[in-house]
Amino acid sequence: MLRPRWGNPETPGSLPGIASAALTQLGVRPRDTVAPEDVVLPDSTLPADALAAIEAVVGADNVVADHHSRVQHTRGYSTPDLLKLRAGDASDAPDVVVYPGDHGDVAEVLRVCSEHLVAVVPFAGGTSVVGGLTAARAGFAGVVALDVRRLDQVTAVDEVSRTATLQAGLRGIQAEELLRAKGFTLGQFPQSYEGASIGGYAAARSAGQSSAGYGRFDEMVVGLVLATPTGTVELGTAPRSAAGPDLRQLVLGSEGTLGVITSVTVRIHRAPERRVFEGWRFESFDAGAAALRRLVQDGPLPTVLRLSDEAETAVNLADPSGKLGGSPGGCLVITGYEGATDEVAARQAAATKALTEVGGTALGATPGEAWREGRFRGPYLRDPLLDAGGLVETLETATFWSNVPALKAAVTTAITDALAGQGTPPVVLCHISHVYETGASLYFTVICAQADDPLEQWAQAKDAANAAIRSTGATITHHHGVGTDHRETYHAEIGPLAVAALRAVKLTWDPRGVLNPGVLV
Amino acid sequence: MLRPRWGNPETPGSLPGIASAALTQLGVRPRDTVAPEDVVLPDSTLPADALAAIEAVVGADNVVADHHSRVQHTRGYSTPDLLKLRAGDASDAPDVVVYPGDHGDVAEVLRVCSEHLVAVVPFAGGTSVVGGLTAARAGFAGVVALDVRRLDQVTAVDEVSRTATLQAGLRGIQAEELLRAKGFTLGQFPQSYEGASIGGYAAARSAGQSSAGYGRFDEMVVGLVLATPTGTVELGTAPRSAAGPDLRQLVLGSEGTLGVITSVTVRIHRAPERRVFEGWRFESFDAGAAALRRLVQDGPLPTVLRLSDEAETAVNLADPSGKLGGSPGGCLVITGYEGATDEVAARQAAATKALTEVGGTALGATPGEAWREGRFRGPYLRDPLLDAGGLVETLETATFWSNVPALKAAVTTAITDALAGQGTPPVVLCHISHVYETGASLYFTVICAQADDPLEQWAQAKDAANAAIRSTGATITHHHGVGTDHRETYHAEIGPLAVAALRAVKLTWDPRGVLNPGVLV
Repeated sequence: MLRPRWGNPETPGSLPGIASAALTQLGVRPRDTVAPEDVVLPDSTLPADALAAIEAVVGADNVVADHHSRVQHTRGYSTPDLLKLRAGDASDAPDVVVYPGDHGDVAEVLRVCSEHLVAVVPFAGGTSVVGGLTAARAGFAGVVALDVRRLDQVTAVDEVSRTATLQAGLRGIQAEELLRAKGFTLGQFPQSYEGASIGGYAAARSAGQSSAGYGRFDEMVVGLVLATPTGTVELGTAPRSAAGPDLRQLVLGSEGTLGVITSVTVRIHRAPERRVFEGWRFESFDAGAAALRRLVQDGPLPTVLRLSDEAETAVNLADPSGKLGGSPGGCLVITGYEGATDEVAARQAAATKALTEVGGTALGATPGEAWREGRFRGPYLRDPLLDAGGLVETLETATFWSNVPALKAAVTTAITDALAGQGTPPVVLCHISHVYETGASLYFTVICAQADDPLEQWAQAKDAANAAIRSTGATITHHHGVGTDHRETYHAEIGPLAVAALRAVKLTWDPRGVLNPGVLV
Repeated sequence: MLRPRWGNPETPGSLPGIASAALTQLGVRPRDTVAPEDVVLPDSTLPADALAAIEAVVGADNVVADHHSRVQHTRGYSTPDLLKLRAGDASDAPDVVVYPGDHGDVAEVLRVCSEHLVAVVPFAGGTSVVGGLTAARAGFAGVVALDVRRLDQVTAVDEVSRTATLQAGLRGIQAEELLRAKGFTLGQFPQSYEGASIGGYAAARSAGQSSAGYGRFDEMVVGLVLATPTGTVELGTAPRSAAGPDLRQLVLGSEGTLGVITSVTVRIHRAPERRVFEGWRFESFDAGAAALRRLVQDGPLPTVLRLSDEAETAVNLADPSGKLGGSPGGCLVITGYEGATDEVAARQAAATKALTEVGGTALGATPGEAWREGRFRGPYLRDPLLDAGGLVETLETATFWSNVPALKAAVTTAITDALAGQGTPPVVLCHISHVYETGASLYFTVICAQADDPLEQWAQAKDAANAAIRSTGATITHHHGVGTDHRETYHAEIGPLAVAALRAVKLTWDPRGVLNPGVLV
């Protein structure tokens, strides 16, 4: 990945015709961008003795401060992150990038950084879209990015227990390839699959597109190892336990503020013999949501289960590859089944019966396969959209089923009003991509023309969306995480005593507060 | 329940003939017991101003100190708890029993007790078997039992989201009856079902006998309300969230040390149309365990799935009702299916095929129904066994599948050696009652003759079992909890930094440490 461009530089995104047409309708004009080599980096403030101490741990070769490395480790992939770098602003760049080689290195670097009061930004895939990689500099002697990419091994596979131990720097795509070679799958396919890493999945409570079948990443983790400035925490002696609180769930989602997760032990599954993806049409979002709810509450549950609303179905963003052959109207549902051949056939047949009973029209494999092929391509569209002068951002939330209609309406209205009020009326698209017995996620995509100050423009819309989410009692994030962007709303969501408890844990493990300062707590 | 006797006094337990015969073989002779009305209570140390302040919150009628109430709130149902009370020792009795009427009462009582440095033992069903209801008195002005039985309502049912909000003092059996009346089930059936309460399920991370189908209680909880001496914590804005750590999982399992859970919102299921329970015979425990693993890893998963080892199968404790008509030899597996009629039929057929493929012999419905009818009766045997001079106790653990054989052997050997070494060779029975994709629980039942000092006798065996569990890397408890009995081993299991983190949270919410002192942390 070459910032600010997403993913593999050999496969850049290009806008489908329908999107370009929509942008023209919105009055968008192309924007210039500062090349990565021309962005302005801040002077390093890292004291020489701190640098020497870090180099003594990992070796001088594994501490770099060249322009390219610092730019590559500047912030993540939120739209504000992208806009700032495009404008030449790399003020949040780390002073140096440190590449530890193992858990011991990580723990020792953290100890040294704490001693020298150097802030540490743990860095795995670097794909945060919520400002999770932007350390507050104030009060610290310097800022280092701790890039765990050298921790890239599958260190154990227990074929009897169906577990694998994965190091934090392993890319999701690499982990899956290594497990497939042994006949297994992890089953974690977030849209960031081509960039994100295992450590990020764990630190940010990732959820992949096949979560209905394989679970969320936090459900996959049965054990983990955490390096902190005060020592190592190792958790997970059994799949489940009644030995006190489940502290794995305290570390998962801590976003690098309590320590650096250096490895996780996860459940794995036999690699599927068969995969089937299909499309279904429902008359309305409510009818589609009722169908999804039927499947998740009474079964059978597909491996992938998604519903695009009328707007998303219409602009065909459920089908970025363009192979659907035009929108079927109504609302598109994607169902996917993975598993043993017989099991897939039985589950598909039962789900087909249930979906038909609740008013669905089968569209066959074409839209399903089109979605599957394009499932990781969405983020590649962000750069060409920004180039073209569009503003595009996504945000997501989750709630209980009975609150889905109110939440969807509140967020859509809040974003629409906030952007229309600035003279840039948006298109707001929504889908459900993760379902639970008691509720679902809602994922919103917002596209409009960039205003003169797109950062301020989006900040207003984002504030309005956050307020709408909070006012309906939903969670501020289903799978993107908190970072810096959601911190205030997150605190309102969990309340002051819960925030105080998290701070108490942080103070215990990171007494000088050097870990990802400003993020989460 | 009348201490020390378990459950409903109208349905006392009686030993099946085979058990009596086994006891005679072990050389057991009957023991006297002190009647509950004759046990010796400690003098109350509760200061008058503290008592007045508590009475001012809940009303004087809801603060009681009569002999019967204090005895009823003395400790729980571990064998040491039972032995002490049988010997007339009620030294751990609370000074008074307090019955708050709502969440506000609970929060205010906690604030008042903290102010007056009075220890608080949160009390729901009172069925702890790990010393979870034995507060350390030293350093406190007094000890109150906070009995939440007046909080006994289902306060909300959301039929769309399939959730229900249950107050902490609601008995499990009551909650199930109230939900059944609306066409739903919670699906939580621990062996303590006839005594335990919702608050205890949550505080101790309970797991019921149908956990394969309905999940553990910690998986059922989507929201909770916690009263602490410093205020209220309310968690759960969505089924799942990436908004920081899952703090629900920090409260679940906190065993009354971080606060008092006053209500939980749980997922519920449509009440099953059909229930089927069956028995299967496997040649050995290893063969049976492989069969269970096959079902949980590759499906289909029954709602109930259990395996008794050769010893448990032989002494017929898998069938306390005696209706099985003699042991089939080998190892008994119980499978149960609950759900919609068609779905049960399909799942049962597929599981039958799988179990047959891996060498199981179908025994039909008789052993399954016998298990189902007797499923809550096991604990009723403890009092007659103690009366008869037997020592009986259970302990449980969990581990990953590949470690199951080593764990089973280590614990069995440790207990056998420790008791045989004292001249009281035991019978050690084992079963698997909870399965996960990556591992399973192991539940041990130990029966031997009481020695002259049965407390010391069991303490030695328990220490040996704890050490064996720890040495094989398993968890000290799968569903009984930590209490005081497992505290030291628990600390070894999670390590000093994790213990420090828990203490930091406790200090934040309970700064004077009045909540269940001595338990967990």
